[in-house]
Amino acid sequence: MWVTPLIERKRDRGALTPAEWRELIVEYTAGRVPDYQMAALVMAVFLNGLQPAELAALTGAMLDSGERLRLDHLGIPVVDKHSTGGVGDKVSLVLAPLVASCGVGVPMISGRGLGHTGGTLDKLEAIPGFRTNLTAAEVQRQMERLGCAMMGQTADIAPADKKLYALRDATATVESIPLISASIMSKKLAEGIGGLVLDVKRGAGAFLPALDDGLELARTMIGIGEHHGCRTVALLTAMDRPLGRACGNALEIEEAIAALKGEGPPDLMEVTLALAAEMLLVAGVETNRDAACARVQDRLGSGEAAERFRSMVATQGGNPAVVDDPAVLPQAEEVAVHTASRGGYVAAVDPRTIGRAIIAMGGGRRTMEDRIDPSVGFVITAKPGDRVRAGEALASIYAGDPEGIQIGGAALERAIAISEEPGPAPLPLISHRVTNTGVDALGG
Amino acid sequence: MWVTPLIERKRDRGALTPAEWRELIVEYTAGRVPDYQMAALVMAVFLNGLQPAELAALTGAMLDSGERLRLDHLGIPVVDKHSTGGVGDKVSLVLAPLVASCGVGVPMISGRGLGHTGGTLDKLEAIPGFRTNLTAAEVQRQMERLGCAMMGQTADIAPADKKLYALRDATATVESIPLISASIMSKKLAEGIGGLVLDVKRGAGAFLPALDDGLELARTMIGIGEHHGCRTVALLTAMDRPLGRACGNALEIEEAIAALKGEGPPDLMEVTLALAAEMLLVAGVETNRDAACARVQDRLGSGEAAERFRSMVATQGGNPAVVDDPAVLPQAEEVAVHTASRGGYVAAVDPRTIGRAIIAMGGGRRTMEDRIDPSVGFVITAKPGDRVRAGEALASIYAGDPEGIQIGGAALERAIAISEEPGPAPLPLISHRVTNTGVDALGG
Repeated sequence: MWVTPLIERKRDRGALTPAEWRELIVEYTAGRVPDYQMAALVMAVFLNGLQPAELAALTGAMLDSGERLRLDHLGIPVVDKHSTGGVGDKVSLVLAPLVASCGVGVPMISGRGLGHTGGTLDKLEAIPGFRTNLTAAEVQRQMERLGCAMMGQTADIAPADKKLYALRDATATVESIPLISASIMSKKLAEGIGGLVLDVKRGAGAFLPALDDGLELARTMIGIGEHHGCRTVALLTAMDRPLGRACGNALEIEEAIAALKGEGPPDLMEVTLALAAEMLLVAGVETNRDAACARVQDRLGSGEAAERFRSMVATQGGNPAVVDDPAVLPQAEEVAVHTASRGGYVAAVDPRTIGRAIIAMGGGRRTMEDRIDPSVGFVITAKPGDRVRAGEALASIYAGDPEGIQIGGAALERAIAISEEPGPAPLPLISHRVTNTGVDALGG
Repeated sequence: MWVTPLIERKRDRGALTPAEWRELIVEYTAGRVPDYQMAALVMAVFLNGLQPAELAALTGAMLDSGERLRLDHLGIPVVDKHSTGGVGDKVSLVLAPLVASCGVGVPMISGRGLGHTGGTLDKLEAIPGFRTNLTAAEVQRQMERLGCAMMGQTADIAPADKKLYALRDATATVESIPLISASIMSKKLAEGIGGLVLDVKRGAGAFLPALDDGLELARTMIGIGEHHGCRTVALLTAMDRPLGRACGNALEIEEAIAALKGEGPPDLMEVTLALAAEMLLVAGVETNRDAACARVQDRLGSGEAAERFRSMVATQGGNPAVVDDPAVLPQAEEVAVHTASRGGYVAAVDPRTIGRAIIAMGGGRRTMEDRIDPSVGFVITAKPGDRVRAGEALASIYAGDPEGIQIGGAALERAIAISEEPGPAPLPLISHRVTNTGVDALGG
């Protein structure tokens, strides 16, 4: 396939035909189109956009590049949730077992850290022994037994997207509404789900910080989902500060387990509850939000959610003792407390600075080949609006060596802004609900 | 080196620092930055441009990636000429020996056919035995003896440019004014020259057909040259029709040799004389254009220019008999005359159609691995504005087989437009002269 003329056309703001997109994706996946040509094309798409017919063709081609899970025989509704990515966003870790414990199947395909954000797979792999590379047959069996599975994209699922996602991460072409939408939806539709809840982040730490971009992304993905017969709903949630307190792979596992016991930080619990309720609603097992919330709360309080997580960890090769004892997780070599250099109000906790610091400390990847240290990160107790005194602890730093502590401390100094007067109000935690019929504003 | 944030910044219309450009080029040349990251960055540069400080840093880094020829000890001024590429443009073949015969050194690094245009190296290699892969030491010795050498980019000269150029060719990022400028100037400055004359083509057969683009390209390259202490002047010349009559490697050698004897077609002689005079002026061996032209004319008429070419051919391993007998060049298997299918005025002779036909007939490359047949091409006697009768000869076709004759004939039928009334006037052969102090319009 001669790709240069296609790159040239996209570069000059033209469109590829659906047939060209399909052939391109087939050839790229087969390794017959080199990464460097795809990188140039994707940058041209990033800067010049995709027309609707191109987006549909690209998504369809990526979906068709692999197999789809067949879960009809489970006899329960099967849904999933996807987050557009943030810092400290460990909600997926809680939702899959929690919603499964409510009688709804969740075959969750997740990703790795991307840009400044963390990735669910990297977090799960902080649990000693945990395998995320399940085969389709393993997913099938586990779904039958447990109703939930958390895994990477198998080689069978949208392999085109897998390859393209890695390339985009390394080429600064992540934050594109059509590319994000095609990537997410091709994977999610391959799960064989009947419903999907999207957690679209907004604010400084989101890939698309602006509300309008978040709404457009939500609408774009909902359009693709509903086109494929998948009920799709989106909540817009705040990512102007990290979600919860823990940021970093092993640290987030620990906090997610607390949340599965109903004991997570309030913001994490609120977002988790809202998304879980939406999942029960799109699954159709509840038709009323209050009833959905009550069912979710019950599974948290009864311990059933945490037990489902324990079973999942054990089934996927991980050490189930992690549910009772976080010490089985990798522990950082160095720990330090970060204190306020002056008194005042916490005006901001910038998620991008935090996310980038974790990468710099070895907890994320700079290139596709990097290995990560799961133990590093932060537990940040300071939240925007908090009043703090000089010398008061704002966060703990977990690092592999003293240099990591220094990097982390310098990042916290930049990320946590302290002002004399209270800063502007942070974004409402959950601000909008988007469906294929419209947008409801929820927050103030 | 973490390249993704640099790509991101360029993508978002920011600038890289000079230090970042330098490190990037060092790391890329050393193979420590993957092609896919460079491809994304280069597409972002293509679409978002380069700021002047970035362009200077990129050019400098590519220049510094290799060695420079050291020719100070020759005791004569050393200059060069570069053409932005066209069809039938064999001026370099004439200029190097001609200007050397005027007492000015010309160490000319040339390229191969690119897109629809011919390449000086491919033309020279039509001469049996001619070697273009000279080492730096060979160039040095030959410059001492003859004052001219014509060769390809050695591995020592701007290796960063060589690598980046191949990537741009495969990723539809060639036609970018800053990238073209950096590429040309990094190579030319590596020749150790004190002056440079640019032949910037305009019209349908140029890479950048629009006058404004040609002027911007000229100004950009002049800015770089002067910044490096190299006196740089540009002439804008017509490439809305082929230059001269011969198009094709061996045929152009034959025409260039005629020109070296003062017997080339008038348009070729006019462009050659103008560029040669500019070279003597930037070299400082003449301060007056009339005197420069007179010196050039003398060397053509006396046979000294042709003898210098003969010596260069012999020194570089070629058969010097070519100067007296074009029959030593590879001869086409098939020759046919193309006639006018109707009477009227020649309204256009499209260079791109001609250039592409030569490639289709085997006289150029579709991929880097293709071998070329130097004998194929055209001698087109028809020029825009000519009055022709039906059945009158417009051109000769030289091909390797009857299919090549057919391809060539069909191309000429499309390329040579005949209209009842005279068409619009062709572009003036030499329309503008650009220096670092401004632009002079020369043509009508």
